[in-house]
Amino acid sequence: MKKVLALTPEDALTMMKAAELKAKEIGVDMDIAITDSNGSLLMFHRMEYGKIASIDIAINKAFTAAAQRKSTRAYGEISQPGGPTYGIESSNQGRFTIFAGGVPLFVEGQIVGAIGCSSGTPDQDEAVAQAGLEAIKASLS
Amino acid sequence: MKKVLALTPEDALTMMKAAELKAKEIGVDMDIAITDSNGSLLMFHRMEYGKIASIDIAINKAFTAAAQRKSTRAYGEISQPGGPTYGIESSNQGRFTIFAGGVPLFVEGQIVGAIGCSSGTPDQDEAVAQAGLEAIKASLS
Amino acid sequence: MKKVLALTPEDALTMMKAAELKAKEIGVDMDIAITDSNGSLLMFHRMEYGKIASIDIAINKAFTAAAQRKSTRAYGEISQPGGPTYGIESSNQGRFTIFAGGVPLFVEGQIVGAIGCSSGTPDQDEAVAQAGLEAIKASLS
Amino acid sequence: MKKVLALTPEDALTMMKAAELKAKEIGVDMDIAITDSNGSLLMFHRMEYGKIASIDIAINKAFTAAAQRKSTRAYGEISQPGGPTYGIESSNQGRFTIFAGGVPLFVEGQIVGAIGCSSGTPDQDEAVAQAGLEAIKASLS
Repeated sequence: MKKVLALTPEDALTMMKAAELKAKEIGVDMDIAITDSNGSLLMFHRMEYGKIASIDIAINKAFTAAAQRKSTRAYGEISQPGGPTYGIESSNQGRFTIFAGGVPLFVEGQIVGAIGCSSGTPDQDEAVAQAGLEAIKASLS
Repeated sequence: MKKVLALTPEDALTMMKAAELKAKEIGVDMDIAITDSNGSLLMFHRMEYGKIASIDIAINKAFTAAAQRKSTRAYGEISQPGGPTYGIESSNQGRFTIFAGGVPLFVEGQIVGAIGCSSGTPDQDEAVAQAGLEAIKASLS
Repeated sequence: MKKVLALTPEDALTMMKAAELKAKEIGVDMDIAITDSNGSLLMFHRMEYGKIASIDIAINKAFTAAAQRKSTRAYGEISQPGGPTYGIESSNQGRFTIFAGGVPLFVEGQIVGAIGCSSGTPDQDEAVAQAGLEAIKASLS
Repeated sequence: MKKVLALTPEDALTMMKAAELKAKEIGVDMDIAITDSNGSLLMFHRMEYGKIASIDIAINKAFTAAAQRKSTRAYGEISQPGGPTYGIESSNQGRFTIFAGGVPLFVEGQIVGAIGCSSGTPDQDEAVAQAGLEAIKASLS
């Protein structure tokens, strides 16, 4: 047996609050999903005007970022036509997401979770996810 | 952040080898699956005469035992017509399994993984899974 | 490496022709599916008045019989409420079928394929599948 | 009836061990899947730091290579926009994989199985799969 790092409920809440704050700041209510290191959902909030279709997208962005340990933006870049992972979005029962808005959280070099956001432009979604990521990192340092 | 227990590759191998040994002892080649605490596959072996339909069943028994933290037999008992979880087998995209052969592994009171077996009768499947479980518990004590 | 028995196109045709003959004899056009030992489709025929919904059912009956090496009727018996494999029909992405009409073909003790029929009553379906099974067995002896 | 070649448990282990060795050599823990000639799973191992999303991808790369009898890289080349099989990755319930890392095993001109790897770059994944392929070929010559 070995020991691995895992998010606490307080960690997830820290990420969620910071992400919501950022969403309000840019004026776009979002769907925000936080997963553990396996991409299993830990916390989810559809803000007041967050989109219905974004429920699935936010959850899948967080799943992808955790389960592949890379931002969904980075996967989009290598999954374009002609790219090395073109076609990967059909894997994992269609959950694999290849556009910006999902970012993985590493602590001490190990994957511990991810946050995925959706409802705005991919750039806005990623900015909100990033705010959640920075908040948890700040709380740990 | 917190620290949680997780299976090592050696732990998974210990479970697999003991399960295969038991399967040979009772004379039924099996499909054997070992997952982590989230029910994500770690190791799988279809023994020489293990069944094709049992690939899915073994993997899903282990998924169910880990992800629901209960033996699949125990879920079968409460999922009969009129029972409190009747119909639960259609959940989790059909992966939820409610007949014997999947058992969870707890260490220090925490779920750390599961083993699921299929190809024999459910009683045989569970005996093989149980052998894997006992081997890892013995190796830890 | 090892060598295993497999159906030839002629074998599949022998099964299909005998099954169709039986279907005509009892006056019920059927959907008839023949698979290899893994349950992968080898040959399919929807007779003139075979049912549309039976396309899926016949294919899945043959899949189940091959991949689980047991008649679908036998699985129905042990999958009733309270039975040892109750709930198994949700496995294998819903392809696992537990009512009569699918039978496995064993040669020299090894699974080599299966035949599944649908459109009549389960008893009629099984009689047609059985006719296909007996024809191939007769051709091999 | 005819006789066809099939992998033994020892063959699968030979492939798995060689692939793991190569993965360690290049310093990327992988998810490694080995299937029979139909693409049905025989053996799977998620190495210690293999990715969660790669469970599905490795299994599906092996499925695709066996069931389509071509490397997944070769399918990627003809499945680009404008290519002859553009869109094929949505077939087979999303299991069809079109980027490098899955290779088929032919013996005496017949398909007998495949190996699929995932967690690194597609080039790394393919190098690990290729190591498994070469080991089994060497053991047979």
